[in-house]
Amino acid sequence: MDMQAEIVAVGTELLLGQIANTNGQWISSQLATKGIGVYFHQVVGDNHKRLKSVIIQALERSNLILITGGLGPTDDDLTREVVSEVVGRKLIENEAVLADIKDYFNRTNRPMSGNNSKQALVIDGAAIIRNPIGTAPGMLIEYQQSLIILMPGVPSEMKNMVTDSILPYLEEKYQLNDVIESKMLRCIGIGESQLETEVKDLIDNQTNPTIAPLAADGEVALRITAKASSKESAKQLIETMETEIHNRIGQYIYGSDDQKLIDVIINQLKKESATIAGAESLTGGKFADQFVSIPGSSQVFNGSLVSYSKSAKINALGVSQATVDQYGVVSKQTAYEMAKQAKRAFNSTYALSFTGVAGPEPLEGQPVGTVHICLYHNENDYQTHTFHFSKPRNIVRELAVKRGLELIYKYLK
Amino acid sequence: MDMQAEIVAVGTELLLGQIANTNGQWISSQLATKGIGVYFHQVVGDNHKRLKSVIIQALERSNLILITGGLGPTDDDLTREVVSEVVGRKLIENEAVLADIKDYFNRTNRPMSGNNSKQALVIDGAAIIRNPIGTAPGMLIEYQQSLIILMPGVPSEMKNMVTDSILPYLEEKYQLNDVIESKMLRCIGIGESQLETEVKDLIDNQTNPTIAPLAADGEVALRITAKASSKESAKQLIETMETEIHNRIGQYIYGSDDQKLIDVIINQLKKESATIAGAESLTGGKFADQFVSIPGSSQVFNGSLVSYSKSAKINALGVSQATVDQYGVVSKQTAYEMAKQAKRAFNSTYALSFTGVAGPEPLEGQPVGTVHICLYHNENDYQTHTFHFSKPRNIVRELAVKRGLELIYKYLK
Repeated sequence: MDMQAEIVAVGTELLLGQIANTNGQWISSQLATKGIGVYFHQVVGDNHKRLKSVIIQALERSNLILITGGLGPTDDDLTREVVSEVVGRKLIENEAVLADIKDYFNRTNRPMSGNNSKQALVIDGAAIIRNPIGTAPGMLIEYQQSLIILMPGVPSEMKNMVTDSILPYLEEKYQLNDVIESKMLRCIGIGESQLETEVKDLIDNQTNPTIAPLAADGEVALRITAKASSKESAKQLIETMETEIHNRIGQYIYGSDDQKLIDVIINQLKKESATIAGAESLTGGKFADQFVSIPGSSQVFNGSLVSYSKSAKINALGVSQATVDQYGVVSKQTAYEMAKQAKRAFNSTYALSFTGVAGPEPLEGQPVGTVHICLYHNENDYQTHTFHFSKPRNIVRELAVKRGLELIYKYLK
Repeated sequence: MDMQAEIVAVGTELLLGQIANTNGQWISSQLATKGIGVYFHQVVGDNHKRLKSVIIQALERSNLILITGGLGPTDDDLTREVVSEVVGRKLIENEAVLADIKDYFNRTNRPMSGNNSKQALVIDGAAIIRNPIGTAPGMLIEYQQSLIILMPGVPSEMKNMVTDSILPYLEEKYQLNDVIESKMLRCIGIGESQLETEVKDLIDNQTNPTIAPLAADGEVALRITAKASSKESAKQLIETMETEIHNRIGQYIYGSDDQKLIDVIINQLKKESATIAGAESLTGGKFADQFVSIPGSSQVFNGSLVSYSKSAKINALGVSQATVDQYGVVSKQTAYEMAKQAKRAFNSTYALSFTGVAGPEPLEGQPVGTVHICLYHNENDYQTHTFHFSKPRNIVRELAVKRGLELIYKYLK
């Protein structure tokens, strides 16, 4: 069966322009990995008549219709009623779902109001997708030659359902033949245009697999995408291309796919049985957050002292008053002492420090975007670096963390 | 004439999920300020047949159709051809536009390729919108009872045209008298369904202004939207409704519009000339980050000690070994000592501490999602709270910070 998918996002806030339809984007990207073609997106408000007309029309031109939003507990959440009308099946209370909802409110210690039980209503004959992190269940509804899928609009709940239930269901039901596989090669220490130059002939001659350079969040990557009749053949195509790319720019590649630089660094530290700590001024906890976001990082990450005020640098962290007076808080010397004191306080193998001017105002006569980073091991082995980022405050803070992680990665490599 | 607007975005990259339809969002937000209702968004790929069907359908249900994308120089840019077919008017070369394009290439020192002259083709009878920063002109096409507007997909070019030409044109042509204003009332300490219950009669009887409850990122809000002949009248309508809502749920409202809870807290602390510090385990710097993301926060925020490992809690922060041994690191007692030690280390007026189980594995026999938070002022004035969040790791960490901020806000209020 040739699948023609359409994504319908429901919510007046989308039509008012308060949020972008990022749910539609994300679902599209997931279906693309399975080789399912998406031909239309629609956005419609919380309005019975218009929502109905959109669903009827989607059924005329598409046979896989994914609807997100409008499953909440309030009166303007209309999706389940409207779909029930369109397919001509009743809404019935589902006991398992009602139990899930009650359980959810128990677990989160919140009172359940009467209208939450509305979320236990499901369309007769629908397969239910349980929602472990919210109250609205998803539904899979076979109707004539089509499959209609209802999902909540809350991104985390919707994504859980797509990944854990909907994609596996579609793969099995439709025996998806053409497999699209892709692999992302993640690079550091090379710019997007240099990267493109190095592989330009590969890009110009590409057919299958295709290669695309991507840039985001201060990093660059190459995406290799292959289409084949089996996962194995697609992977084989990717592997051949990957070898060629490695021959050219291997020294810049630190990882692949969802692997983040922080994952690689945590593994590097584990291999060395080493630990690390931080001393943060302008990054304000963003360095620590990189580690703590990864489960199991406490084996290598001891902690970080966010010393944001000048007095915290001196009293809580132990930078000397003389250094601050002589060189200022935004200086290589202060960065060095911050890292050294962080290693002492947390008794770690290494420490990384960040001090700088995030903006919007200059500090101590230094321009916005100046950042000093020190990677400290011991008195004979430390390095300090100075960067200048011409970006807004919170981007400067993120780039500082990224460059700090690069320093650790290169040092440990 | 009652305007029913629809926005059509053209581009296969949107259907592949490579980018979100932020053009649709932005155009919607601009039309909203002029009181023009947008009822549908559609996204369609670079495909002749499907693009044609989408435009024909838009003409059936909407009388203002804004199409963005597909006006480039390459073969897969089809919008001008398809619209020309739908309205039954020829494409003709426009000399002024051709001169603009040649001039553009001269100014940017780039060679003009043959296919760029395709962009000088315009629909017969269309009013042309010059493009000072690109090569594709916009077009305004009157067709039957409708107005079709073609714009480039490049966001900067599209935005220029909307702001400089299209909105002024619509205002004059349709004598838009109505202004839409909206105000968001931001709440904490109340769930979405309870909020709705409290204002249900207002929602049920709403005409102008309208009221909508919204939930996102662990917070809820009420949006009041009013339509009137002047900005002043719209604001007056909103104010009257706001007063009524304040009478009912005033104690839950902490701010409005883009104001964040952290902004309010920073102001509360400034008023008291008080300072705050943090001691963070599972939140791993996210509490500190809330403050440091706001310029000028160093006046009230000293710093935070991210003590992620057990040894960091004892050695770097100063929690007693006995407390950790007896109660565990995930306990009210440890939370209390963490906050007390943070106040000491940073010499702050208040300190807030976070310890808990972010997951994915339970810790010390305590289930994932258990979080203890302590707000410490002095030995006679502190409070500890225990929460249970049934969410994935990084959501648990964010909700913990949110609840911590709620505690400070309520305490300082």
